[in-house]
Amino acid sequence: MTRIDIPRDSLFGKDNLPYGVFSVAGGEPRVGVRAGDHVVDLAAALGDDVFARSSLNAFMARGYDFWTGTRRRIGDLIAGDVPDAAVHPVSEVRLHLPVEIADYVDFYASEHHASNLGRLFRPDAEPLLPNWKHLPVGYHGRAATVVVSGTDIVRPKGQRKAPAETEPTFGECRRLDIEAELGFLVGTGSPLGSAVPAAEFSRRVFGAVLVNDWSARDIQAWEYVPLGPFLGKSFATSISPWVVPLQALQAARVPTPVQDPRPLPYLREDEPWGLDIDLSVSWNGEEVSRPPYRTMYWSPAQMLAHLTVNGASTRTGDLYASGTISGPEKAQRGAFIELTWGGKEPVRVGGEERTFLEDGDEVVISATAPGADGGRIGFGEVRGRILPAVS
Amino acid sequence: MTRIDIPRDSLFGKDNLPYGVFSVAGGEPRVGVRAGDHVVDLAAALGDDVFARSSLNAFMARGYDFWTGTRRRIGDLIAGDVPDAAVHPVSEVRLHLPVEIADYVDFYASEHHASNLGRLFRPDAEPLLPNWKHLPVGYHGRAATVVVSGTDIVRPKGQRKAPAETEPTFGECRRLDIEAELGFLVGTGSPLGSAVPAAEFSRRVFGAVLVNDWSARDIQAWEYVPLGPFLGKSFATSISPWVVPLQALQAARVPTPVQDPRPLPYLREDEPWGLDIDLSVSWNGEEVSRPPYRTMYWSPAQMLAHLTVNGASTRTGDLYASGTISGPEKAQRGAFIELTWGGKEPVRVGGEERTFLEDGDEVVISATAPGADGGRIGFGEVRGRILPAVS
Repeated sequence: MTRIDIPRDSLFGKDNLPYGVFSVAGGEPRVGVRAGDHVVDLAAALGDDVFARSSLNAFMARGYDFWTGTRRRIGDLIAGDVPDAAVHPVSEVRLHLPVEIADYVDFYASEHHASNLGRLFRPDAEPLLPNWKHLPVGYHGRAATVVVSGTDIVRPKGQRKAPAETEPTFGECRRLDIEAELGFLVGTGSPLGSAVPAAEFSRRVFGAVLVNDWSARDIQAWEYVPLGPFLGKSFATSISPWVVPLQALQAARVPTPVQDPRPLPYLREDEPWGLDIDLSVSWNGEEVSRPPYRTMYWSPAQMLAHLTVNGASTRTGDLYASGTISGPEKAQRGAFIELTWGGKEPVRVGGEERTFLEDGDEVVISATAPGADGGRIGFGEVRGRILPAVS
Repeated sequence: MTRIDIPRDSLFGKDNLPYGVFSVAGGEPRVGVRAGDHVVDLAAALGDDVFARSSLNAFMARGYDFWTGTRRRIGDLIAGDVPDAAVHPVSEVRLHLPVEIADYVDFYASEHHASNLGRLFRPDAEPLLPNWKHLPVGYHGRAATVVVSGTDIVRPKGQRKAPAETEPTFGECRRLDIEAELGFLVGTGSPLGSAVPAAEFSRRVFGAVLVNDWSARDIQAWEYVPLGPFLGKSFATSISPWVVPLQALQAARVPTPVQDPRPLPYLREDEPWGLDIDLSVSWNGEEVSRPPYRTMYWSPAQMLAHLTVNGASTRTGDLYASGTISGPEKAQRGAFIELTWGGKEPVRVGGEERTFLEDGDEVVISATAPGADGGRIGFGEVRGRILPAVS
């Protein structure tokens, strides 16, 4: 038996306990929980086959009461001795995509981000479009290309046409960008023809991950009218391997910014709440931005209520992301197109002036939030390196 | 043993043989093939468990050579006597969603449809946007809400704002519409980071279905800038239960309309080909439109090549649809917003003037194409009835 020693300042203490899917050399992927610098094999420790799977989906589908009970059992377990065979140093495991993604939706919930992009793309008009403060604008992305942190990102090819060019050309993306986001994973689905009220958010949503929604800005700019982003986004979306349970984010709840005009009734909550999560974006090892999730205009519960108000069904494994998180300050912008103002204001990275991503670049997004014990909890990171386009 | 009698003028003769998923009273769903007015239980007839499933996915994943061999075996089988237990009258089975949908993409490949919508929504500008003739415009839809023909469609609710209104309101969709489309099902997926050349279309795509992409025009018009359609489409997309194998559509191949300007190399084919499929749209039992698939500008192979040119992976069960099929004539338009010119030119249905769908209305889309034997083959139908919104 092993007593898991969790350092007092660990970001993965007993008030966090995120879930993931791991494997050890020669073994099959299975569900684990992270405690300090260790991973506990839940099928081995709790004796329930729902954890002997290659994704969290079966566990998530069991529903809120089972999630709560499991979290309590894990708390009891790690307070005592854990069977040796169920404990692995996190440095010795491989982490996999934690969830089989059903549908993927991406929102656009940061007022600062939407305003910045409006100023960049439509300099002579109001930065926010008329619908923006009335509903959380969103669209569907490609579920197949959601990949786990650490997956290399091959520079996409496609059609681009700069405003000054008369014809489109085909070739490598020249304006490859990131979007630092938070993603929410639906645990318990809802049937076709029924809406999920905002108040049901906490019972439906299992947890949160970090998201990097890689974006090919030149491809996107040429293709996106009138039906929205398609190939400019669909080549890859990276998520962090640890799913932070919603129940670990209680202490991180903060009110959203004031919503004016008042949203329509289906989007109202007694008190719409966001999350006080601090993100950090590193470019080749240098922090270039600290996006604050607390500045997001629309709440996670409002996004889910909107997504289903037309009767659309949800499924275990649905991922919906917040859209780029950008705060009011320049050093809080979650996409390089904003940070470098369309490439016109380079940032210094490793002593060089940089605008968009170059081959070999690596981006790491990490985040922490207040924990229940007065300390902080961590999301870990979502990491990706750019490989050259396939010739 | 039973000899299946197929009438000579059947739309489901031995040159068609579409696949579906059926069940009989008290039985589990399983894969069948339609021959005349009968369904043959393939697991029972061919003794392969790949057909004892509730979707075609496992069969589709076996790949092109297996599809070809199975079609040949079925041809031999129905030329002789078939075990009684494997044969069911089509009137006695229930048909299910034939495929577990992975990702769903909807294109916009009809020049007449895109031009009509351009004239309706942007009357003072060029009807086609600058990118339209350079790439097949498309976007991702919601896979969870793809339903089989016969599923009732609950009128969606959502935010709408007519141009003359100053604020959006919440309520029932007032401009509920159809989109008559053809859908293609990917059988053999492709890995992340690789493009599927247009020439691989016939080995990757398993078959085709009819699609009705139900559309809430008022919700869509308010929400869709800048990220495209979302709740205006995501409440339901109906598909026909019979998947017509691509191999049954050889005789239906026709050249696409001339593509000018010449597409970029990744979209070129030796001879881009479309399909000579005649659709029929019935509204409460009256035919109101006959959309001709042969008029579609972009070919099915070009759509697949475009969808993957950025390295996006595909999976068994991916559905991509053509977008609304509209021909040059008014009576060939595949959406009511075009047919009634935004509601300003009602059509007569059952002695009444109608524009958009009312509660209780039923729409049936059917289609036929030339078959290998000089006759015609059928797609069957995709049917849906509008139920009142949930109060």
